[in-house]
Amino acid sequence: MAEPFPFTAIVGQSEMKQALLVAAVDPRIGGVLITGDRGTGKSTAVRGLAAILPPLRVVADCPYRCGPGDSPECCPHCSSATTRTLGTGPVPVVDLPLGATEDRVVGALDIEEALVHGRKRFEPGLLARANRGFLYVDEVNLLEDHLVDLLLDVAASGENIVEREGLSVRHPARFVLIGSGNPEEGELRPQLLDRFGLSVEVTSPDDIDLRVEAVKRRESFDRDANAFHATWAREQQRLARRIAAARKRLEAIEVTDMMRRAIAGLCIKLGTDGLRGELTLIRAARALAALEGDTTIAANHLRQAAPLALRHRLRRNPMDEAGSRIRVERALAEAWAA
Amino acid sequence: MAEPFPFTAIVGQSEMKQALLVAAVDPRIGGVLITGDRGTGKSTAVRGLAAILPPLRVVADCPYRCGPGDSPECCPHCSSATTRTLGTGPVPVVDLPLGATEDRVVGALDIEEALVHGRKRFEPGLLARANRGFLYVDEVNLLEDHLVDLLLDVAASGENIVEREGLSVRHPARFVLIGSGNPEEGELRPQLLDRFGLSVEVTSPDDIDLRVEAVKRRESFDRDANAFHATWAREQQRLARRIAAARKRLEAIEVTDMMRRAIAGLCIKLGTDGLRGELTLIRAARALAALEGDTTIAANHLRQAAPLALRHRLRRNPMDEAGSRIRVERALAEAWAA
Amino acid sequence: MAEPFPFTAIVGQSEMKQALLVAAVDPRIGGVLITGDRGTGKSTAVRGLAAILPPLRVVADCPYRCGPGDSPECCPHCSSATTRTLGTGPVPVVDLPLGATEDRVVGALDIEEALVHGRKRFEPGLLARANRGFLYVDEVNLLEDHLVDLLLDVAASGENIVEREGLSVRHPARFVLIGSGNPEEGELRPQLLDRFGLSVEVTSPDDIDLRVEAVKRRESFDRDANAFHATWAREQQRLARRIAAARKRLEAIEVTDMMRRAIAGLCIKLGTDGLRGELTLIRAARALAALEGDTTIAANHLRQAAPLALRHRLRRNPMDEAGSRIRVERALAEAWAA
Amino acid sequence: MAEPFPFTAIVGQSEMKQALLVAAVDPRIGGVLITGDRGTGKSTAVRGLAAILPPLRVVADCPYRCGPGDSPECCPHCSSATTRTLGTGPVPVVDLPLGATEDRVVGALDIEEALVHGRKRFEPGLLARANRGFLYVDEVNLLEDHLVDLLLDVAASGENIVEREGLSVRHPARFVLIGSGNPEEGELRPQLLDRFGLSVEVTSPDDIDLRVEAVKRRESFDRDANAFHATWAREQQRLARRIAAARKRLEAIEVTDMMRRAIAGLCIKLGTDGLRGELTLIRAARALAALEGDTTIAANHLRQAAPLALRHRLRRNPMDEAGSRIRVERALAEAWAA
Amino acid sequence: MAEPFPFTAIVGQSEMKQALLVAAVDPRIGGVLITGDRGTGKSTAVRGLAAILPPLRVVADCPYRCGPGDSPECCPHCSSATTRTLGTGPVPVVDLPLGATEDRVVGALDIEEALVHGRKRFEPGLLARANRGFLYVDEVNLLEDHLVDLLLDVAASGENIVEREGLSVRHPARFVLIGSGNPEEGELRPQLLDRFGLSVEVTSPDDIDLRVEAVKRRESFDRDANAFHATWAREQQRLARRIAAARKRLEAIEVTDMMRRAIAGLCIKLGTDGLRGELTLIRAARALAALEGDTTIAANHLRQAAPLALRHRLRRNPMDEAGSRIRVERALAEAWAA
Amino acid sequence: MAEPFPFTAIVGQSEMKQALLVAAVDPRIGGVLITGDRGTGKSTAVRGLAAILPPLRVVADCPYRCGPGDSPECCPHCSSATTRTLGTGPVPVVDLPLGATEDRVVGALDIEEALVHGRKRFEPGLLARANRGFLYVDEVNLLEDHLVDLLLDVAASGENIVEREGLSVRHPARFVLIGSGNPEEGELRPQLLDRFGLSVEVTSPDDIDLRVEAVKRRESFDRDANAFHATWAREQQRLARRIAAARKRLEAIEVTDMMRRAIAGLCIKLGTDGLRGELTLIRAARALAALEGDTTIAANHLRQAAPLALRHRLRRNPMDEAGSRIRVERALAEAWAA
Repeated sequence: MAEPFPFTAIVGQSEMKQALLVAAVDPRIGGVLITGDRGTGKSTAVRGLAAILPPLRVVADCPYRCGPGDSPECCPHCSSATTRTLGTGPVPVVDLPLGATEDRVVGALDIEEALVHGRKRFEPGLLARANRGFLYVDEVNLLEDHLVDLLLDVAASGENIVEREGLSVRHPARFVLIGSGNPEEGELRPQLLDRFGLSVEVTSPDDIDLRVEAVKRRESFDRDANAFHATWAREQQRLARRIAAARKRLEAIEVTDMMRRAIAGLCIKLGTDGLRGELTLIRAARALAALEGDTTIAANHLRQAAPLALRHRLRRNPMDEAGSRIRVERALAEAWAA
Repeated sequence: MAEPFPFTAIVGQSEMKQALLVAAVDPRIGGVLITGDRGTGKSTAVRGLAAILPPLRVVADCPYRCGPGDSPECCPHCSSATTRTLGTGPVPVVDLPLGATEDRVVGALDIEEALVHGRKRFEPGLLARANRGFLYVDEVNLLEDHLVDLLLDVAASGENIVEREGLSVRHPARFVLIGSGNPEEGELRPQLLDRFGLSVEVTSPDDIDLRVEAVKRRESFDRDANAFHATWAREQQRLARRIAAARKRLEAIEVTDMMRRAIAGLCIKLGTDGLRGELTLIRAARALAALEGDTTIAANHLRQAAPLALRHRLRRNPMDEAGSRIRVERALAEAWAA
Repeated sequence: MAEPFPFTAIVGQSEMKQALLVAAVDPRIGGVLITGDRGTGKSTAVRGLAAILPPLRVVADCPYRCGPGDSPECCPHCSSATTRTLGTGPVPVVDLPLGATEDRVVGALDIEEALVHGRKRFEPGLLARANRGFLYVDEVNLLEDHLVDLLLDVAASGENIVEREGLSVRHPARFVLIGSGNPEEGELRPQLLDRFGLSVEVTSPDDIDLRVEAVKRRESFDRDANAFHATWAREQQRLARRIAAARKRLEAIEVTDMMRRAIAGLCIKLGTDGLRGELTLIRAARALAALEGDTTIAANHLRQAAPLALRHRLRRNPMDEAGSRIRVERALAEAWAA
Repeated sequence: MAEPFPFTAIVGQSEMKQALLVAAVDPRIGGVLITGDRGTGKSTAVRGLAAILPPLRVVADCPYRCGPGDSPECCPHCSSATTRTLGTGPVPVVDLPLGATEDRVVGALDIEEALVHGRKRFEPGLLARANRGFLYVDEVNLLEDHLVDLLLDVAASGENIVEREGLSVRHPARFVLIGSGNPEEGELRPQLLDRFGLSVEVTSPDDIDLRVEAVKRRESFDRDANAFHATWAREQQRLARRIAAARKRLEAIEVTDMMRRAIAGLCIKLGTDGLRGELTLIRAARALAALEGDTTIAANHLRQAAPLALRHRLRRNPMDEAGSRIRVERALAEAWAA
Repeated sequence: MAEPFPFTAIVGQSEMKQALLVAAVDPRIGGVLITGDRGTGKSTAVRGLAAILPPLRVVADCPYRCGPGDSPECCPHCSSATTRTLGTGPVPVVDLPLGATEDRVVGALDIEEALVHGRKRFEPGLLARANRGFLYVDEVNLLEDHLVDLLLDVAASGENIVEREGLSVRHPARFVLIGSGNPEEGELRPQLLDRFGLSVEVTSPDDIDLRVEAVKRRESFDRDANAFHATWAREQQRLARRIAAARKRLEAIEVTDMMRRAIAGLCIKLGTDGLRGELTLIRAARALAALEGDTTIAANHLRQAAPLALRHRLRRNPMDEAGSRIRVERALAEAWAA
Repeated sequence: MAEPFPFTAIVGQSEMKQALLVAAVDPRIGGVLITGDRGTGKSTAVRGLAAILPPLRVVADCPYRCGPGDSPECCPHCSSATTRTLGTGPVPVVDLPLGATEDRVVGALDIEEALVHGRKRFEPGLLARANRGFLYVDEVNLLEDHLVDLLLDVAASGENIVEREGLSVRHPARFVLIGSGNPEEGELRPQLLDRFGLSVEVTSPDDIDLRVEAVKRRESFDRDANAFHATWAREQQRLARRIAAARKRLEAIEVTDMMRRAIAGLCIKLGTDGLRGELTLIRAARALAALEGDTTIAANHLRQAAPLALRHRLRRNPMDEAGSRIRVERALAEAWAA
């Protein structure tokens, strides 16, 4: 596969890039939903981000890409292997192609084995291949609800449990789910929206200079990808180091009780259901603090993280015509003022 | 599987916890339906409860988890075994994963056996695996009616009867069915509602201190589950002892004739169909009395049990805008006054 | 299978019990439809009734339960057997479980035989198993029309004719079809209604003493079924003898011409289609006379039988708001007066 | 199969009986559609009629019941047979059972042959079995349109052409199609209506004496079928001879040119499409003349045959509220007057 | 198969007969759509026409009926044959029976070959059988759109391309598609209408003499087909010679530039899309000229051909209530006047 | 396959021809959507264009038509081949026939291999066959959305990724997708519209001379295709040389910064989403400049390319009733004036 367009060369779209960086630093954030216009580089950004993450340590030959930290019974391969040697591999970005059947997503009976040897063997699917990487679903709002639900369940639990065709298998499937879609073509159910960790909205830039710059970079890349990569190499390495540092620092970031109360008050004011909003907001703010080299979650992290973590958890308020971002920011200002 | 979040560390949600404890003391109560907001810890509570129940005595190798009290013809395994040795196993919590097909739920023809050996053999499904434990169905209101009906039938009879693909099998399937769902996304038919033993409604707490406390406990648990368990060990053991004591005491709890008449009057006043409301209410009150160390069902037990057992059995009364809990309590007050 | 709740211990519901007794005395009555509230003991009553009927004389090993009166070509088993020895067996009560597929109902190709020996063999279904007993269909109004139609056809002809998968089989399937359902959840087509012989409506009793008594009996039974059966043994034997006597006396019951004309007039007045109403009403009245030890159908038998046999054959009359039972009784009074 | 209720013992319903007799005398009439109330003896009449027709001369062992007049290539059996010996067999009445699949209707690949011997062989279906007899479809208006169409096509051509599963077979399928149905439950498309040769409407009699007589005859038959048949034997033989005589006389019945012009005028006046109405009307009148021993079609034959042949071919005229029978009769009177 | 009703003995319906003759003379005309009342002899006419066409020269044993003019690679049979000998065969008329599955229409994998020999072999379908003849589809408006489209595609290209079940086959399928249907039962999409070359409308004659004559001829034919054929033999031969002569003369018919401009002007005035209308109109006029022994397309040929070729290509004009035939004729008159 | 109608002999339709030439010069343009009347020569033009493109250099025996520039792992064939020899082949034009199943489009398990040898082997589909050529989909608006989406995805990525039936295959599928359709029969979703590179609208010419000329050329071609080709040979060679020259010159065409800003401004003014409009417009203008022998994109190239590239990317503006072409041209004039 060819080297993708460099993440750092993407023009504009800063909120989307920020959300993806948060997910790169803390993959347990619960996935990112990107809504908005087509042709705004969503897929490009995901692929670009994965390409600068450090390679994974993986069990050699394990189709589930298990790592040194996984238990020996983590998957069908590792639990039947006698020894486990380690190798490395790139961070996977798996596309859910249109028309992929459910059995290819979750895995299925291996037909060849069944026909030739009369043995039931599990053949891993796309969820297995996405383990420890990214699963990208374009037009997630056009997928059938039960498939979206399945993806979100697996993304949340980090485990794929297959109960079909006489098979009963479980294997790790820890990935960052990235869903993109155009809400004009059909909305996700609120139930599903709430289960994405972060959400961002992207639009086409309407600044001529930005657009010309974006088009030129794209053309340069199309003409000579290698030369283009060389130009951006230093910028790419800088970002890679920043992510690596943030990952190490993450667990040490502190949250004051006052900050916790402010966050709880914000979520009560906005009426988000359950605790998922709060937990995600704290996680996102923590990742942002880590990316910026801070040691405590501060007001500015909260201000950046809140729209990402809460926007899609608002109930629709027919009396309030403001957009969801503005409603989050207004509540934030009031919560802070209080 | 990792140790779940401790049941006793769950903040608030006392009604849901009470209903689950009743079901743990008297599993014949008929299942629990939990409705309300997402992210309020429904699945966490079920898993937590199962983890403190005493391990089961089971027939070794029996995929149906039959116990010493089951007859030798109880299941295909035990009826063809020559000897039965006993072992122990944890109380199962089985999830009905989204997209599980009916054949995996009830069991099906074993394809491998059929292809290789040309023999029809039954391969047990999720109902078999849930025997003597819990079957948890998230978003039960989104399941197809016939599947819900099937689950409720099996839960009520304690037996799974399979008539398909030329198979004719029956095996024990005594489990507590826990269904959760958000009524905003689609209601259950009254017919199905009535067949759940108990029902509770959960909401997100709107007290800042409670929320902060809940978030902090969750974060502690996520950071170091073992340490967290150590902190709560004593509390957990205390609850385990209380459940065990209640189970022993259960059959001895008395019901006075006056209490029976009060209960019948209450059900007639509320217009619940058939006798299921009364039988369940008596069972639930008995379990509560047992949990509280009492020997007779008293007014306070009735007051706690009535909303759990009757709320979902009310007919909708368009003239009465009060919520179902309030209608139960009002009728209770009147019945008592009478 | 455990002994069911004794038929004679059922509290109230006299009309339902009467209809079932009629069907026990004359199984050609055409099935019983029981509508009304859940939890009113419909299934309990059917099972209880079957348990006190005398055991059947059956051809040993015949999966169709053929009896000494059946011709040697009655079924695939008997027509290929060289000798037929007789044994005895209980009166079957077969449940049509939710989700049973049509092939399990009518029978199907035996897959094992086909796979292993490449032979087509018919594997009998639930209709075969119900031969000479009861087929109980809960929520019959939720079944697909074509399945209800099929059940009624077979119940009427007493024969199951299978034309599928290259099979062409016929075997006896004489059973009493008992359908239960709640009309609030979906009505049967008039076309299907008309084909049930009898119909009754059941409601929850609203007398406190009755309800307390019913709950107490149920609890006694749940606590110690054997002791409970001992208490009711004498009552059960008395009913068994009464049914046996009525069966013998049935054919000898006389119908006067005046009674015939009264019945025809009643049906014309009520506008029931065809002759099915009259034929069923005469049969039901005859069975009631037999149960009561009488030798001729008299007015009181007609009064009891008419609502059972005609209620569901009325056309809806928008000008007449009276319930169907009342309309039958009114017409009866007028017919008698005339 | 038991002897059916005697055709001549049926009380009333003279129009239905007349239409069936016409079809018995000239099976090429194109089928009979019987609409109206349930329980009016439609199926009884068909079975009764078939039972008095003379047995067929058939090729021994031919599953298509080919006769001495069929060519040696008429069916797969006869075209591969080396010699053909003749035997006799009863006139078949085949029911299209509810739920019969299309492959059983038209015939299908013989699965056993295919699995065991790897050979494609045609297994005849219900159309083959109905050859030279009657195919009775109850509730024809509830059948799917394509199946009705298929039945009518085959009934019209007298040949079943099967093109499916790699099979290409044709065999004779000359039968009288009898469809019954209740128009309140769904109408047939005009396109299909027009293809039935004759149609009659039946209703429940509302004369008490007739009904009592009908019920009594039914009860006598149910009590002792043999005795009942003995009582009606002479009447049955008389009708059998009348049919046989009419069949012989049929081709010789003359139609005058004036009668032809009257018939054409009648059809133009009623606006029936195409020539099918005229051809059928002439056929039906001819059969009636033959049954009555006449040699020419006269006005009285026309008057009896016209409602049978034309009633279902009228276009609905919103300005004319008269029933279809009356419209036919009125046009007949006018045509005659002209 | 019995000899069909003679084409020349059909009473009236001259426009339909003309369109069929045009298609017989120039089969590349693109099919004929016949709409109107049932029972007006559509199928009879097609079968009658085919019966008087000269037999085909065909490659012996070729299931595709390839001819001497086809290339050696034209079909799977001819391209694998070593030598090709020629024989003769009748012009086929193939019916698309109701319920024929798509695989029988286009051809499919030969199941016997696959099961027994594990070889993929193509089994030709109805399209192959119709090659060089007629494919008759009754009630074409009730066929699913994709099947109609497929038939029209193949009819237009003269080739059947099969891409399914791992097969990739092409073979000649040059046939005249005749579709009949009643527009009251469902219209064809304009898209499909436009792809039929010619269209005619038929109605039941409302002249008594014509109808009596038609009925009499039908009855004579039904009574003794051979005698009837003898009566019409000379008329039939005359028509056969006329068709043969027209086919030879066809390519030499001239079209003047003025005629071309008149035709283009007519099509522009009527607003027919694309050039298909013009090309078909010229073809049809040419065939008519050839049938009438002329050497140039003249006004009278145009006048006869225009309704056939253009009627179904008009856009609906809500302001113009005239029927389509009249609109064509009016435009023709104006174009000619101009 | 016969030689198609010469591209240069097509009368009129200059915009369609221009768009196809652009796609021939730069196949990465993203496909062409042709909407409008039937019978306007869309399929003819595509086939004609392909026939004058220079033959491809291909790996011998490679079913994916890989070329010398493809990597050795490009496809299942090349990656398992030991040596690769080169040959030549024509530019393919593949039709997506109506009714082609998804497995034939993307490829599928080879059934013969599986049945006979019990091996899973991929059998390439139509996407493989279209590699390096054209895929023509008639009535693309009638295809199911998921198939259109799949075609556009593959066309955009140049790669077919198959995840089904236990297969996991990728192979090159670089083709120009040509979709045609009539918007009156159903529109494409805006989401899909945007993904076609160019779009043109065709109409029937309403000039008599043009139509007569077109009809005459068609007739000449139908009469003697070889003679017709000879007449147009020189014109065809001239166009072939022009395309070849343009391809070489393409990469060297320059775009000034002013031109880029004008293009960005135009797209912002028209409100096209994302950058796809701009990138395509630049590509199309570049190809036009190359075809005309220029070295820089100038205003006239932009004026020709803009309607092709932007027309289908406009949002519908209910206040602006102008057609899309006019809106593009107006914005163009204003952008230029600014």
